[in-house]
Amino acid sequence: MRPRHALAELAERFDLALHGDGRGSIEGVGTLGAAGPEQLSFLASAQYRGQLASTRAGAVIVREADAAACPVPALIAADPYVAYARIAALFDHVPAAPPGIHPSAVVAAEARIADGASIGPFCVVEAGAEVEDGAIVGPHCTIGPDCRIGAGSRLVARVTLVLRVALGRRVLVHPGAVIGADGFGLAFERDHWIKVPQLGGVRIGDDCEIGANTTIDRGAIEDTVLEADVRLDNQIQIAHNVHIGAHTALAGCAAVAGSARIGRYCLIGGGAGILGHLEIADKVTVTARSLVTHSIREPGEYSSGTPIQENRLWRRNAARFKHLDELARRVAQLANKDSPR
Amino acid sequence: MRPRHALAELAERFDLALHGDGRGSIEGVGTLGAAGPEQLSFLASAQYRGQLASTRAGAVIVREADAAACPVPALIAADPYVAYARIAALFDHVPAAPPGIHPSAVVAAEARIADGASIGPFCVVEAGAEVEDGAIVGPHCTIGPDCRIGAGSRLVARVTLVLRVALGRRVLVHPGAVIGADGFGLAFERDHWIKVPQLGGVRIGDDCEIGANTTIDRGAIEDTVLEADVRLDNQIQIAHNVHIGAHTALAGCAAVAGSARIGRYCLIGGGAGILGHLEIADKVTVTARSLVTHSIREPGEYSSGTPIQENRLWRRNAARFKHLDELARRVAQLANKDSPR
Amino acid sequence: MRPRHALAELAERFDLALHGDGRGSIEGVGTLGAAGPEQLSFLASAQYRGQLASTRAGAVIVREADAAACPVPALIAADPYVAYARIAALFDHVPAAPPGIHPSAVVAAEARIADGASIGPFCVVEAGAEVEDGAIVGPHCTIGPDCRIGAGSRLVARVTLVLRVALGRRVLVHPGAVIGADGFGLAFERDHWIKVPQLGGVRIGDDCEIGANTTIDRGAIEDTVLEADVRLDNQIQIAHNVHIGAHTALAGCAAVAGSARIGRYCLIGGGAGILGHLEIADKVTVTARSLVTHSIREPGEYSSGTPIQENRLWRRNAARFKHLDELARRVAQLANKDSPR
Repeated sequence: MRPRHALAELAERFDLALHGDGRGSIEGVGTLGAAGPEQLSFLASAQYRGQLASTRAGAVIVREADAAACPVPALIAADPYVAYARIAALFDHVPAAPPGIHPSAVVAAEARIADGASIGPFCVVEAGAEVEDGAIVGPHCTIGPDCRIGAGSRLVARVTLVLRVALGRRVLVHPGAVIGADGFGLAFERDHWIKVPQLGGVRIGDDCEIGANTTIDRGAIEDTVLEADVRLDNQIQIAHNVHIGAHTALAGCAAVAGSARIGRYCLIGGGAGILGHLEIADKVTVTARSLVTHSIREPGEYSSGTPIQENRLWRRNAARFKHLDELARRVAQLANKDSPR
Repeated sequence: MRPRHALAELAERFDLALHGDGRGSIEGVGTLGAAGPEQLSFLASAQYRGQLASTRAGAVIVREADAAACPVPALIAADPYVAYARIAALFDHVPAAPPGIHPSAVVAAEARIADGASIGPFCVVEAGAEVEDGAIVGPHCTIGPDCRIGAGSRLVARVTLVLRVALGRRVLVHPGAVIGADGFGLAFERDHWIKVPQLGGVRIGDDCEIGANTTIDRGAIEDTVLEADVRLDNQIQIAHNVHIGAHTALAGCAAVAGSARIGRYCLIGGGAGILGHLEIADKVTVTARSLVTHSIREPGEYSSGTPIQENRLWRRNAARFKHLDELARRVAQLANKDSPR
Repeated sequence: MRPRHALAELAERFDLALHGDGRGSIEGVGTLGAAGPEQLSFLASAQYRGQLASTRAGAVIVREADAAACPVPALIAADPYVAYARIAALFDHVPAAPPGIHPSAVVAAEARIADGASIGPFCVVEAGAEVEDGAIVGPHCTIGPDCRIGAGSRLVARVTLVLRVALGRRVLVHPGAVIGADGFGLAFERDHWIKVPQLGGVRIGDDCEIGANTTIDRGAIEDTVLEADVRLDNQIQIAHNVHIGAHTALAGCAAVAGSARIGRYCLIGGGAGILGHLEIADKVTVTARSLVTHSIREPGEYSSGTPIQENRLWRRNAARFKHLDELARRVAQLANKDSPR
């Protein structure tokens, strides 16, 4: 049976004012357009305000200013999206993982597993690894030598911690992530490459989240570091010795090259790239697919690229780009001739 | 022993006209340039027409117009590439997977596995999962709660269906794919992120193909949806609540941000990006690496980016791009002065 | 206990001249800025020369020209980074993998495993696979039919070789890599896609390295080929029938489309893209995120894209790019009017 929550109970529990009849109750959440009378919705973005009048939701979380326009009971929040996130968690049934080691797991005698930790089917935990209390290691994970998983962290499934990886507390890692693989260190000797040993590790702070199939290499000499509350989406590549400041978020497919240093509270858009050995200040936003090729010292929003166009038009413009410097020189000449001599 | 197929037999079986001697037989396929007398080749692209005269293939699939120029027996097809695809399947020996559950697999008592389904070594099938008849689940897969695999689908190996993922019939998923992981939902509260529960699922239609290491997140409230016959190459990222219309194909490393809606029969080039909350009409082609930043209402071909150049030239042009607006203003001034007053 | 190495011993073993007192010894490596008296450092890049005077390292590997400025004992090398790589390997303790097949592995009777090979926990080795002497297959790997792993190669963990994949000797493959999955071959028939069988394989030369979560598809008819000493970073996508010449290196997230042919000694930057069916000469460098859309016949450095800017400025310039062809025409008109008639 699904849990039901009375509106009055939710208002009290999450410290929200209630406008309208609090006797109703909800058993789930929905979008403004699709929610039914048993569901709670929210209005966080002006883009969806037009849907408020016709919503059939059981109740809506809104800002004070939108309460009067809400045709159904309203929960008033300073930030409706934050309030929604907290309430929606009531309906998020993460399957419980029983403490203990699944009989199929292969755990080295020298590994330290807390009694309250859960090690799932087909996990491999090697000598020198440590899993703290309340940590959940889902199926098909490998925890390599000198790796540590902090209390309350969760590796959903099929996560590989290769070598010298320390996860803080409450870190969430999604399937397919590879943390602590060799950084891409190569030295060119005459006519072939030789491998540069990768002797550092990876340190990941409390409350970080690492997306599916994301890769974070271990450092060459010192460690690759994510401070607390760093949020990485799927398929992100973090090269060796990168340092990412607390509360910074990177969207899907972003990539950071070796030894780059990103500040705190940055937002790195999807597919953005950051070259190696440069620094990005705190509170920098890089828009999707932009490439950062030099250090950014000031907070603000940064972009590169060209706009999408019909291919027929784009081809002409792109062809002109190849001669943009000449064009600018010609304009300078014209301006020069044009100006009084 | 390899199967042999007489040309006359192939002509009849695939309903193709035969020009030349049909008594020969083939036991494999090859390119025009490399095929020998035991192999069948095809000519689909004008680019390779020059290789036809010298081919040593046992036979070639060609369009009617190319038959006369073919020095060896020819099978005539309206679309030689389609005919080739069908005939080549005769030589594609996918190893059979025996029905039943491999003794090493960990299958919850509450999971429903059809008798004719095959569950490979080291699979984990959790309570509430369902695998239909004729489905093949290769080694190292995890099928999470409330996931369903339709009849005749195949998970090649090491595929993770996290939560609430429904695959239709004859869906093919390649190794490393992660379907149904948490969407990247975060709300910023004062000075830190809080996680927004991801309560939706993923629905994938019949005959879809999902490439290696591709990720498809489950929806925040409603589902992420791929309609029938959607084809995703490797390392594609599909964010939460994306909707992709039937018969659309995305090439490798493309990425689609949250709640974007892509029409039917679209072709999205390799590495292309599509921002969130926008719509793309049916029959839109986006060229490789282009970034779609606004909705596209009309069918057609769209592009962004600049052409590749020698770095020495590119640097000059790129430097001018930083002042392109000024340049355009200067030209407008000059034109203004130049025009009769 | 950590190994200790006397400076005099290192100088002799690696054939390096020693300046200063050779009686000291080191037990690890460190950066110029952080190394202590027990650690060896190196100076390879002019960027770090300023740190030499204040280093507390036990010794530093430097070029002859920097020896006089080194405040501590110096090992003299023509290429300090190469010498560092060789010496640092002394401190790289890769855990030994015992020869033999882990009891949990599922190995087909028809697979050939050399006595000196190591097959880790939860591996699946299918009929027709071959693992040569000294090869190490870490946990959670799948070695499919007709796959061969050459002597001394190492699959770190969770690597999938799907079908017809031949790895040479001393190949290193990082976790999550998928090699030999179906190429993305589709033929469009009237109103739907049909799959083109992928009948080729993958051949990877000696001494190659394949990064974490990198994907290399098998060929459609002939093979996908990496010659010897090719180095692929993480999350790279190599499509079917690509051919990469010896000693070429691709940085993270680069992608190569089908049937492209890359020469020897090329450097492909992070996130760069290479379209299909084109050729790149030997010794070509493609800078990060550039897209190669036509063949490159001459060695050299190539780039595309626009520079990063403040979003406010970038928006104006990007808007002008959409009309760059018009702008160039207007300039041509002005120049025409301006020139003597």
